[in-house]
Amino acid sequence: MKRIAVLTSGGDAPGMNAAIRAVVRKGIYDGLEVYGINYGYAGMVAGDFRRLTIDDVGDTISRGGTILYSARYPEFAKLEGQLKGIEQLKKFGIDGLIVIGGDGSYRGGAALTKLGFPTIGIPGTIDNDIPGTDYTLGFDTAINTVLESVDKIRDTATSHIRTFVVEVMGRNAGDIALWTGIGSGAESIVIPEKEFTMEEVVAEIQEGRARGKKHTIIMLAEGVMSGVEFAEKLSKFEEFHTRVTVLGHVQRGGSPSAKDRVLGSIFGYNAVKMLEEGKGGICVGVKGDEVVFNDIIDTLENQKHLPLLSLYQINKEISF
Amino acid sequence: MKRIAVLTSGGDAPGMNAAIRAVVRKGIYDGLEVYGINYGYAGMVAGDFRRLTIDDVGDTISRGGTILYSARYPEFAKLEGQLKGIEQLKKFGIDGLIVIGGDGSYRGGAALTKLGFPTIGIPGTIDNDIPGTDYTLGFDTAINTVLESVDKIRDTATSHIRTFVVEVMGRNAGDIALWTGIGSGAESIVIPEKEFTMEEVVAEIQEGRARGKKHTIIMLAEGVMSGVEFAEKLSKFEEFHTRVTVLGHVQRGGSPSAKDRVLGSIFGYNAVKMLEEGKGGICVGVKGDEVVFNDIIDTLENQKHLPLLSLYQINKEISF
Amino acid sequence: MKRIAVLTSGGDAPGMNAAIRAVVRKGIYDGLEVYGINYGYAGMVAGDFRRLTIDDVGDTISRGGTILYSARYPEFAKLEGQLKGIEQLKKFGIDGLIVIGGDGSYRGGAALTKLGFPTIGIPGTIDNDIPGTDYTLGFDTAINTVLESVDKIRDTATSHIRTFVVEVMGRNAGDIALWTGIGSGAESIVIPEKEFTMEEVVAEIQEGRARGKKHTIIMLAEGVMSGVEFAEKLSKFEEFHTRVTVLGHVQRGGSPSAKDRVLGSIFGYNAVKMLEEGKGGICVGVKGDEVVFNDIIDTLENQKHLPLLSLYQINKEISF
Amino acid sequence: MKRIAVLTSGGDAPGMNAAIRAVVRKGIYDGLEVYGINYGYAGMVAGDFRRLTIDDVGDTISRGGTILYSARYPEFAKLEGQLKGIEQLKKFGIDGLIVIGGDGSYRGGAALTKLGFPTIGIPGTIDNDIPGTDYTLGFDTAINTVLESVDKIRDTATSHIRTFVVEVMGRNAGDIALWTGIGSGAESIVIPEKEFTMEEVVAEIQEGRARGKKHTIIMLAEGVMSGVEFAEKLSKFEEFHTRVTVLGHVQRGGSPSAKDRVLGSIFGYNAVKMLEEGKGGICVGVKGDEVVFNDIIDTLENQKHLPLLSLYQINKEISF
Repeated sequence: MKRIAVLTSGGDAPGMNAAIRAVVRKGIYDGLEVYGINYGYAGMVAGDFRRLTIDDVGDTISRGGTILYSARYPEFAKLEGQLKGIEQLKKFGIDGLIVIGGDGSYRGGAALTKLGFPTIGIPGTIDNDIPGTDYTLGFDTAINTVLESVDKIRDTATSHIRTFVVEVMGRNAGDIALWTGIGSGAESIVIPEKEFTMEEVVAEIQEGRARGKKHTIIMLAEGVMSGVEFAEKLSKFEEFHTRVTVLGHVQRGGSPSAKDRVLGSIFGYNAVKMLEEGKGGICVGVKGDEVVFNDIIDTLENQKHLPLLSLYQINKEISF
Repeated sequence: MKRIAVLTSGGDAPGMNAAIRAVVRKGIYDGLEVYGINYGYAGMVAGDFRRLTIDDVGDTISRGGTILYSARYPEFAKLEGQLKGIEQLKKFGIDGLIVIGGDGSYRGGAALTKLGFPTIGIPGTIDNDIPGTDYTLGFDTAINTVLESVDKIRDTATSHIRTFVVEVMGRNAGDIALWTGIGSGAESIVIPEKEFTMEEVVAEIQEGRARGKKHTIIMLAEGVMSGVEFAEKLSKFEEFHTRVTVLGHVQRGGSPSAKDRVLGSIFGYNAVKMLEEGKGGICVGVKGDEVVFNDIIDTLENQKHLPLLSLYQINKEISF
Repeated sequence: MKRIAVLTSGGDAPGMNAAIRAVVRKGIYDGLEVYGINYGYAGMVAGDFRRLTIDDVGDTISRGGTILYSARYPEFAKLEGQLKGIEQLKKFGIDGLIVIGGDGSYRGGAALTKLGFPTIGIPGTIDNDIPGTDYTLGFDTAINTVLESVDKIRDTATSHIRTFVVEVMGRNAGDIALWTGIGSGAESIVIPEKEFTMEEVVAEIQEGRARGKKHTIIMLAEGVMSGVEFAEKLSKFEEFHTRVTVLGHVQRGGSPSAKDRVLGSIFGYNAVKMLEEGKGGICVGVKGDEVVFNDIIDTLENQKHLPLLSLYQINKEISF
Repeated sequence: MKRIAVLTSGGDAPGMNAAIRAVVRKGIYDGLEVYGINYGYAGMVAGDFRRLTIDDVGDTISRGGTILYSARYPEFAKLEGQLKGIEQLKKFGIDGLIVIGGDGSYRGGAALTKLGFPTIGIPGTIDNDIPGTDYTLGFDTAINTVLESVDKIRDTATSHIRTFVVEVMGRNAGDIALWTGIGSGAESIVIPEKEFTMEEVVAEIQEGRARGKKHTIIMLAEGVMSGVEFAEKLSKFEEFHTRVTVLGHVQRGGSPSAKDRVLGSIFGYNAVKMLEEGKGGICVGVKGDEVVFNDIIDTLENQKHLPLLSLYQINKEISF
């Protein structure tokens, strides 16, 4: 193993730079050359490679986004794109690859390994929807960003009886909505993993009202429906004056939290070690305070979300 | 002057608690009794008064919202409501009143003074749309809140060519959009005070693109149109993939900035002094680092926004 | 089990209010009466008890500190104090107790259980120095607070060759210094768990200088020595112009992070369940995304810090 | 006027990058070439110049510190250094200079103008100690940074009777201490502009105690003495358990506040206009919402601080 490469793929997430930095520094510490690939798999196929030095990752650990840019590139699901990518990797003399991203990135990495090119996956997405790890890179920062906003909404106590619908990200996963719903003491949390009826939500709101609550916060995962759509449904119960907040891409940005900076460092460091040990098709993760390594394919077939459902139950009993 | 009262009216704003605290502490320092009226003019008419002590305002200077709650109460525009209010004020033995809020609150205060009840106005609104002062209470906090969010949006640099429309508050005023547009280096700022065409906006976006900008931020004042509506108009130029962020009530909350805490303290302190000097129908403001006092009626007839328009021009020349 | 009580003891930590809130709400949800004890064990012995309702914990989840106040009370190590405490608990008809705090609080809880009064411990301290859990309540908030400050120090890049010594809390544990050292890319991390010589530190600084670094950050755990003392030792190598930052109690405060709010909710919820199941002498913790329960005495005899030392090694190899 | 240069000098301050950005963009907008000089006057004499493009200032408006670095360079007070500087400016074909910094920077600019080289000054320092403007660049960010920390200290309410001494920056000026003292509701504010005795401070503390306050915050300007020294004096009154917080260089960093970003933009824009109008020896400032221009020499001879003293009096009457 003389030369390795790293890329970020899919939606960007805070902490990706910390992982890139760790890959570069650990690699150089061990005498390797490290290349960065811009724009994920699209850049790989296009041959958009650059040598990364220690200076290139200086002062990046505190930055949001990714210095390697990111892109979605569905074409890489096809064999043709994968072979093109390997051709480029070989052209640049790369012996091993580290991909930071979500399940799409993982599938690409598994495919490359199957084709003989050792690839390691690092879970990087704010959605926390990748199995094989307690937390994905960026999730902790995203939920802190959402909470700061919801705390501000709580401040604006008014005499009007008002309902705030806060639409948060998470694709098909409810993790962001659930954690921030618990963290903000939201009166109602609506996530894709749990069926619900508008009647239940209205009942939860009215319980709060009955206990003298002036305003109600509903944390809504985008995977269920849009905040505007949800507010329209609510408006059928016309006693509500509903306000919708769509935080949008605010949730993807921001300086990474302490957790994501350390997590990124641990992931990047161990991904390099895996390549050095000749491994491939493996993804790095954490279980508690231990680093774990799983087969990418097995991982993608797993389900996570038991802890999520138990959290959901806890919330039911402390936010009634 | 033995007993004074204070209320907050209209939309709440960070710093209102700092002003209330200053009114209470300065009043007590001078040997007055201070009462708080809940829910603005609605609470006044309903007789929702309470004695405020130093403890009641303890640890409130750093809190968003208003401990006196706020309400919109159009009925107070009518003489009947005003007389009812004075009746309640007299019932509680109040000799003078301080109202914290926007132009609606000012008109109520002017009417009460005209009816013989001395009232002083403090400009409290995030919209910065009250003449007679450089800044209104809450504006500084609001623009910092917006900027934190826009900085996060900037982080999520992607390879996709993308346009972000950020809808911010301000009612009919463009101050929040303009200040945060300059502060975030937005490629385009759209405010009610300046006519614009979609063609101009698109031109500004494309200039940025031409200089290699990956993504574009448009700061849109709610007084122009909604972010969703604006994005629809933009989508006619289909090369754009537009994302909309509606910060909503996030902008009204949050712990007040240093500026708003000090401003609130200065306003509250001087409002009490005005009442002690037997004044009424006056509103407090700042011009630079000096406190100014204006007749409420004259003030409401004035126009501000010259500085705003010169700021707009500065931005044109440094954000081309 | 009809009536339970909760107290916070030792140094306060962000997230304690989230735990108190969960104890109160879960207790009431299950039909229990919940009492709060002010000032920890000191208040217990003094009989400073109060009934807690759902309103008492309203809007507290986002607040730093503890609404029950906290106190150190060494006298509680003696049997006499413990018996006095049980006497008070019985006087108020309490059937079970939950203590939130550090090892001192745990020992008190273990003693009470041994004397027949069922007590459950929740790990609440920013120092992360309690075995039996991956993380203690408050640690995550504290390291984020420290990082925000160190990020600001990094900003002030000057042409002077300068060394910043940042003294952080942690009592005898290096966790805060290590996590924030990694998270800020500190050139040197000095913790009690690792021997060091000034020569080594100076060598690390000079390596950075050799690579053109303008300023150096040393993260120093208070358990090693004070920042001022450390700076004096460094000043022997007079080419350094050293600046010392002592964040002090800033690190104990602040609105709890998302992690600490959820962790506090999980801890409080499960502590109540333990009491309901007739358990005592147990402390709650988390291992990864699972809740764990350990015997307090065994826990206090355990050592944690293996993960810490591996983190230390990772940092050595990515921050050379 | 074909080619202008800009430098930052003295202690760096948040907002300097916003001013540099405005100078570069306004200059280029008007068809000028803009050069940056690294390390202030030291870099000028050393000939450390570089051409600045629009890309060089991209994404810098939200960054703390200064991309041009800063340095103190007392030698520039001597004619020899000034002539050397002008020689370099001419060598690079510079027709006009903009200096961003404190009084030292101003004196340098005045000297250059007197020697025939037109120079404009922009007030850039967190200390707010430059006459001729209501606010200096960086002050607003610094007081917000300090307040965030003091708010956290307030959180850690304990049963111990405790006094917190918070030492803040400001050189010989008390502005930071006074504004943050008012903004945090500090029990005592100690600044160089006001004589005080320890007895008075102790009296203020004890008044608070008498009203049941659990802990006391003293905001101390570094211009008076160090926090450690102050705490020692206080400890003579041994009933106090005093904690000292020295925020240090944290106060110089951080992403600039909205105010400082807009102020920097206004200053930079107008400084370029002055040069274009053939002016020199002028410093830019704001009075309220208007831009003002003063002769540097006259300005340095003026005193500011009347508003400061009236603020001090307000605080006396609302924080008793």
